[in-house]
Amino acid sequence: VLDAAEALFQAGGLPAASIEAIAARSGVAKSTIYRRWTNRATLLVELLVEIASKSAPVPEGKEAMAALRTELRLIGQSVNGPAGRLLASLASEAHHDPDVRTALLEQLIYPRTDATAKVIAQAQASGHIRPDVPPRLIVDMLVGPIFYRLLIQHEPVTERFVKQLFDEALEGLRPKRAARG
Amino acid sequence: VLDAAEALFQAGGLPAASIEAIAARSGVAKSTIYRRWTNRATLLVELLVEIASKSAPVPEGKEAMAALRTELRLIGQSVNGPAGRLLASLASEAHHDPDVRTALLEQLIYPRTDATAKVIAQAQASGHIRPDVPPRLIVDMLVGPIFYRLLIQHEPVTERFVKQLFDEALEGLRPKRAARG
Repeated sequence: VLDAAEALFQAGGLPAASIEAIAARSGVAKSTIYRRWTNRATLLVELLVEIASKSAPVPEGKEAMAALRTELRLIGQSVNGPAGRLLASLASEAHHDPDVRTALLEQLIYPRTDATAKVIAQAQASGHIRPDVPPRLIVDMLVGPIFYRLLIQHEPVTERFVKQLFDEALEGLRPKRAARG
Repeated sequence: VLDAAEALFQAGGLPAASIEAIAARSGVAKSTIYRRWTNRATLLVELLVEIASKSAPVPEGKEAMAALRTELRLIGQSVNGPAGRLLASLASEAHHDPDVRTALLEQLIYPRTDATAKVIAQAQASGHIRPDVPPRLIVDMLVGPIFYRLLIQHEPVTERFVKQLFDEALEGLRPKRAARG
């Protein structure tokens, strides 16, 4: 079902990925689809979560700062691919469809923000990031400029941009010398 | 004409602000409207530019750092009002309407980014911001997280958020002590 949804979205964007079309392409009955997903929004956001968890997983088992740098680099790459296109479409639809808005926040944005905030808290605990800055503010400082470029499209999200963003944002978040010594 | 467009948008969002409805409400003929604006997108973006230039003007005649701080505070306030709603609607429409996308970038985003980048260049010239960081990157670091919150709506844009964002972003952009001394 998700494969069918992905193929339809790739071919014709969100309008093409209706439950009817997904049912026809996957050979799964609409009633069966609705047993698994309450509505089209939850299905499409699950597809996005699946694509994003492959193209930009939250890195695990790494030192926190390396994990953060890797995560940001992968997010930067994946906004230029299918995950970025689907996120931009769903974010735009979320503006007039409360189901899409709820699904996007609850299935993707909140869990993902929590996961990244946890890595930031580890970096704070290990003394790499100042502990007085709220982790959620840091998440938005790091990913906000990337998604701003994705959603407004005024400038491309290049690898260089993401690297500079990470370096400059972290520059001010490093513990002060005085505090360390 | 712009007043009519604004009233219609406030009452019923973008769908309500059609050229037909704007013509009917303002008493100005459609042909006259089309002589002044090539399409609906340029008219609506001009309305947004007008609202934004009142609610969050680029501050002039101030010391650069104070100007930047004021600008960010006003942007933070105005995304919670009519300017924010109209920008979010147009950004979402820009995703499938190239006219809206072009109008939004050329009439609002590019000129505004240029204006803010100019103030940042002044702050770099006066030694308040490190001169090795591209001004446009700094613009996106400052406004990106605000517009990310506006467009995804996962967290409100509070005054406290904007203040912390400004302070933390600028922290790492300050010239190093060693370089000053």
